[in-house]
Amino acid sequence: MIPTAQRQWLVAERPVGRELKPTDFRLAEAPVAAPGVGEVLVETRVLSFDPAQKSWMENAASYKQPVEIGGVMPGSGAGVVIASGHPDFAPGDAVVGDVGWREYPMLAAEQLQKVPAGVSLEAALSVLWGTGRTAYLALMKVGKPVAGDTLVISGAAGATGSLVGQIGKIAGCRVIGIAGGAEKCAWLTEELGFDAAIDYRGEKVKARLRELAPRGVDIFFDNVGGEILNDVLARLAVNARVVICGGISRYNFDPRSPQMPEGPRNYFNVVFTGATIQGFLMPHHERDYPQADARLAEWLADGRIKAAPDLQRGFENAPAALMRLFEGKNRGKQLLQVGH
Amino acid sequence: MIPTAQRQWLVAERPVGRELKPTDFRLAEAPVAAPGVGEVLVETRVLSFDPAQKSWMENAASYKQPVEIGGVMPGSGAGVVIASGHPDFAPGDAVVGDVGWREYPMLAAEQLQKVPAGVSLEAALSVLWGTGRTAYLALMKVGKPVAGDTLVISGAAGATGSLVGQIGKIAGCRVIGIAGGAEKCAWLTEELGFDAAIDYRGEKVKARLRELAPRGVDIFFDNVGGEILNDVLARLAVNARVVICGGISRYNFDPRSPQMPEGPRNYFNVVFTGATIQGFLMPHHERDYPQADARLAEWLADGRIKAAPDLQRGFENAPAALMRLFEGKNRGKQLLQVGH
Repeated sequence: MIPTAQRQWLVAERPVGRELKPTDFRLAEAPVAAPGVGEVLVETRVLSFDPAQKSWMENAASYKQPVEIGGVMPGSGAGVVIASGHPDFAPGDAVVGDVGWREYPMLAAEQLQKVPAGVSLEAALSVLWGTGRTAYLALMKVGKPVAGDTLVISGAAGATGSLVGQIGKIAGCRVIGIAGGAEKCAWLTEELGFDAAIDYRGEKVKARLRELAPRGVDIFFDNVGGEILNDVLARLAVNARVVICGGISRYNFDPRSPQMPEGPRNYFNVVFTGATIQGFLMPHHERDYPQADARLAEWLADGRIKAAPDLQRGFENAPAALMRLFEGKNRGKQLLQVGH
Repeated sequence: MIPTAQRQWLVAERPVGRELKPTDFRLAEAPVAAPGVGEVLVETRVLSFDPAQKSWMENAASYKQPVEIGGVMPGSGAGVVIASGHPDFAPGDAVVGDVGWREYPMLAAEQLQKVPAGVSLEAALSVLWGTGRTAYLALMKVGKPVAGDTLVISGAAGATGSLVGQIGKIAGCRVIGIAGGAEKCAWLTEELGFDAAIDYRGEKVKARLRELAPRGVDIFFDNVGGEILNDVLARLAVNARVVICGGISRYNFDPRSPQMPEGPRNYFNVVFTGATIQGFLMPHHERDYPQADARLAEWLADGRIKAAPDLQRGFENAPAALMRLFEGKNRGKQLLQVGH
């Protein structure tokens, strides 16, 4: 039976040059329609969070449709089909897609993908599609790991970092994670199989890298920027690859603000090492999505990759769940179970 | 006839974290020996200058033999053989090599190379070997030009930059130079065939780039660093290549000094463009020297590349000639004719 009303979160303000705050979002009611031809009505079960969502709210991401003030907050998630106007989808099918922060989103069938049998919604959102493609393609196509490489990852306990480390182990790398806090570091080495972890809050990154990577860093996978990036650039091996995948230390600042972290002074070490610093943006690698999807699904199925989501609860807590990413609170992929 | 005494310049102080000054060098007399077996005695005619020489004096270049205080100032140059203990060299042969700042250097035969017939010593030092290999290999192997690319060069009126622009034209690029002063800019467009030039002292680099490269910069060849690097990073095209070849804005500062120019805050634009920032150090490309040497010699011979040295005079002026590089005074390759 199709419900008649749903809750949805709207964008109320653009968080340009500052931290997110609860009043950037507004909870509203909306009607639920029956699907027309080609449409599928979904019940959202799990929402998925990504730091890029802040830049979407700012209309700062050139690759994304503009977001209107008063429009539904965009975001991906997973759920179950409750009514379908398309022959490929039937009630009960588990699906993922850009559902937005809505309880009963209506989507065109081509905007949805089915969750493979035997994979939970949480595992699918943690390891497949966006997060998994980013981790796999940024590491494999930009980082270009060779067995024996020393791979260092910043934001290692985040959604992408925690996957990159696991994929790096499969590729034969020695994997060192950098994360904030002893608890996250223990999780990386004890649960996810990282060879070592550096707590940037309690330890000196440069000194620890000298101990842990005495022959230098072959691949640095950066999700953070700022001082950590600068410190790792001081320890590059010859022909190192630096993958710029994210910059969580930067997302709360206007690019012209004096509070914006400095650029990396040690960039010049690329001259002495012949190293490469390259950016990764997923849409540039669309041709390789099928490869990423297939391998991640295989590794998830055979247990070589663990899904390790950070699962919050309650649709009303969606803004707080997004803010956790910028507070360094999440351990693994930030998800929200819509029900309690 | 072999002279009995020669003048030579010794390193007196290390210019760490500051500008060069005349008292960093000391003029001294030394005896001249007759060559033993395998040795060649050269009369230096032209000395060649490079910003890296300052880092050699600081022992800051890991790829170079340490320089002793009181030792002969290292540097390359060209001259004529006056006595030879090796069958491959005869008096009168024109040669280049790491002669040091000495009037009559003695070198092992394998440290010398003959200047091709028909090429002046000045042209050889400006276009062949070190400077030419740097320009050719850094552009071709790291910048990877494709016909139609927009190539932007900082320090464009310098030894390397002025060659990179000419090679870029041969490779089919649209070439934009950035240099200090209207006179240098006019020289680039009128004498060397650059398509456009930006005077960073008199013009706003970002605004001019927007006009001159409306579809973005495909290759940035950086000899400068600092604010110019940051400005160009704001204008990268998708899949741009940034070649870090030099950083003249940095060489007078200790890496930990607060005066050291900031790192490039706009480095993060590599994410949105998928661009690559890669360093170039010549010794990493030794396998490709023969290709560089052959093509540069051919282009010099057929007039597609112009040798454009900045020729000072008088052995006693060697320190002043080196300092010109850091004062932005040289236009083209800085050379010194040893005689008056």
